Amino acid sequence: MTDNLFYQNPLVFPSCHVKRSHFFLRTQQGGAKQYAIYNNMLLSTTFQSIADDCRHLKQYVQLWDVSGQRQVEIKGRDAAKLVQYMTPRNIGKCAVGQCMYALLCDKDGGIVNDPVIIKLKEDHFWLSIANSDVELWARGLALGGGYDVEVAMPDVSPIAVQGPKSDDLLEKIFGKMVRAIRPFRFEYVPFMGHNFLLARSGWSKQGGFEIYVDNPTIGLKLWDEIMHIGKDFNIHLGSPNLIERITSGLLSYRSDMDLTTNPFEAGLEKFCDIDGDHDYFAKTALQNIKRQKNGVQRQIRPLKFDSEIPTCSIPWQVFADKDNHNGKQVGRVTSATTSHETGGGIAIAMIDSTHWQVGTRLMVETPDGLKTASVTSFPIQ
Amino acid sequence: MTDNLFYQNPLVFPSCHVKRSHFFLRTQQGGAKQYAIYNNMLLSTTFQSIADDCRHLKQYVQLWDVSGQRQVEIKGRDAAKLVQYMTPRNIGKCAVGQCMYALLCDKDGGIVNDPVIIKLKEDHFWLSIANSDVELWARGLALGGGYDVEVAMPDVSPIAVQGPKSDDLLEKIFGKMVRAIRPFRFEYVPFMGHNFLLARSGWSKQGGFEIYVDNPTIGLKLWDEIMHIGKDFNIHLGSPNLIERITSGLLSYRSDMDLTTNPFEAGLEKFCDIDGDHDYFAKTALQNIKRQKNGVQRQIRPLKFDSEIPTCSIPWQVFADKDNHNGKQVGRVTSATTSHETGGGIAIAMIDSTHWQVGTRLMVETPDGLKTASVTSFPIQ
Repeated sequence: MTDNLFYQNPLVFPSCHVKRSHFFLRTQQGGAKQYAIYNNMLLSTTFQSIADDCRHLKQYVQLWDVSGQRQVEIKGRDAAKLVQYMTPRNIGKCAVGQCMYALLCDKDGGIVNDPVIIKLKEDHFWLSIANSDVELWARGLALGGGYDVEVAMPDVSPIAVQGPKSDDLLEKIFGKMVRAIRPFRFEYVPFMGHNFLLARSGWSKQGGFEIYVDNPTIGLKLWDEIMHIGKDFNIHLGSPNLIERITSGLLSYRSDMDLTTNPFEAGLEKFCDIDGDHDYFAKTALQNIKRQKNGVQRQIRPLKFDSEIPTCSIPWQVFADKDNHNGKQVGRVTSATTSHETGGGIAIAMIDSTHWQVGTRLMVETPDGLKTASVTSFPIQ
Repeated sequence: MTDNLFYQNPLVFPSCHVKRSHFFLRTQQGGAKQYAIYNNMLLSTTFQSIADDCRHLKQYVQLWDVSGQRQVEIKGRDAAKLVQYMTPRNIGKCAVGQCMYALLCDKDGGIVNDPVIIKLKEDHFWLSIANSDVELWARGLALGGGYDVEVAMPDVSPIAVQGPKSDDLLEKIFGKMVRAIRPFRFEYVPFMGHNFLLARSGWSKQGGFEIYVDNPTIGLKLWDEIMHIGKDFNIHLGSPNLIERITSGLLSYRSDMDLTTNPFEAGLEKFCDIDGDHDYFAKTALQNIKRQKNGVQRQIRPLKFDSEIPTCSIPWQVFADKDNHNGKQVGRVTSATTSHETGGGIAIAMIDSTHWQVGTRLMVETPDGLKTASVTSFPIQ
């Protein structure tokens, strides 16, 4: 086993490389213990503990600073055309006022990012991005291909209201209309004279909304109002929760998938219209992968451990059960922690086809030594 | 003044988002206190203190893990053409075996990155990058524009040997030939049966080399050998040093410049062949900026403070001396700390043309309150 120093959580060197969000002081004052670095911004993660935050999220309501989920704005005459080329999902079906979870793929099918595409106007989109530089990707495509678009990253910072009491809380602030917003739709809601884009979306399976703050001064007042009115609903500060998202099967870009992963391996082909009439950069590659006799050779699978495990900060090797751990590697864990719900470790792993059947027993090399686990299915129970 | 919590150095949440380098355990064991997040990797920064590390670097020799300086590999029939389009510098003058510091610019002249371009073969380049995703930028350009190239990010991790004793040390390991390597040239040097690319380059003004480790197993043995032989030269582990690089005028991408900065504003036009015969994406934009009657309206300037200051982790506003600090803002500080050499604060700032003359007195809003400073020139003395 490697030296424990290897797994120590590092302290961030003070520099302007990494940006603080408009809500950073609020999350600091609220007791944020650790930060993810997400699109070069500090994204608060843990307040009480991962388990306590998860328990609370599932029962009440939380306010999250997810400013690191930046907006890449693509607008202009060729905007719809370029955005369509970027994703295998048919966005011809996306109406103004709608949001669509979509994969962006390079020509070989590798996943560049998995944003929510927000259609503001017919020729104006925000890609609300996961953790990779879609701005440079889109600028490169536009410049190389001569698309008539403007690509920018405006100062728009999402805050999320998540949990079962989200509708009750936001009704008190914005009125009854919030209940009528359908999943992955948005409306503009007034607050102190400013209209905020409010979408029923968010990176949990507990329900809720995201508010796209394009005015930080009024946005801070809105933050404080949500916390004030939220007292009646036992609101806490929170964040995307590791236990909740592993259990639910929400994949994290750059941990669970990256440019070397295709949509089939990620188990996300249901968000692709591989054989649609629309053109997109990855079309030939993804059609070829789909038609391969044996399909993909590895795929994302959830694992359930027999015992507790630490939180994963570097990919862990997965071995077939009966082999020595120096023997055949059949996958790797990319997200993992201990769940208070199962009483043991839970993980997201990329597993070879030979060992991906539900129930298959595996051995995982963790910082605490070899641990046994079984392949299961989402949601982990 | 804002709450001190605002300036606290955050702890990184454990996840696979941020990668550990092959040398991470070595830097942890060596006492690295803080890490920059650089191209989504942990880059060790401080060992003793910024000042002690600086003193040592200028007198002896240090080994740095700069794996975060990733290589973006561009190869294929159109490689030289695409790399030339990406930069205003005329790379037609770059020979195989040569390295060239160059700016990459978007079509409006905004700086995308400032890599060292390493010409491995006529049709094979590494862009040894600063902190932005040049891989996605180059992939986007190649896919959009139909260039016949392969773009990848191979597992090549630079380690740097920096300081006045660098030649003495590396001669003992690789032989006399290291002394003959000219600045920004490279040779392949054998170690334990593997040939490593060794360049006379590095992110300090103290002289030294960078070794591009493309075999981590042998690379770790080389690391240990350098530390072993280096004992005779009082070697320490080190890192790019904040005092040394501010004093020298080495700009840090994403802190001191970004997509909104052009080469003239950054004071880096000497690395551009604006009016050369070669074509590049930013040519029209940069020629227009060059020909504007008044030139740029702001430019990078070093500042020297009258007293000590903290290390800058969020841009500080700069005000004209005689105005109230709520009055006219004339710039912002993007890198700053206290120097043991000047006895006070030193900084890199972007200053409006009205206030950029050497000797101009300015007021800077720091976390410790308003501080007075003067515009000076590089190197700061």
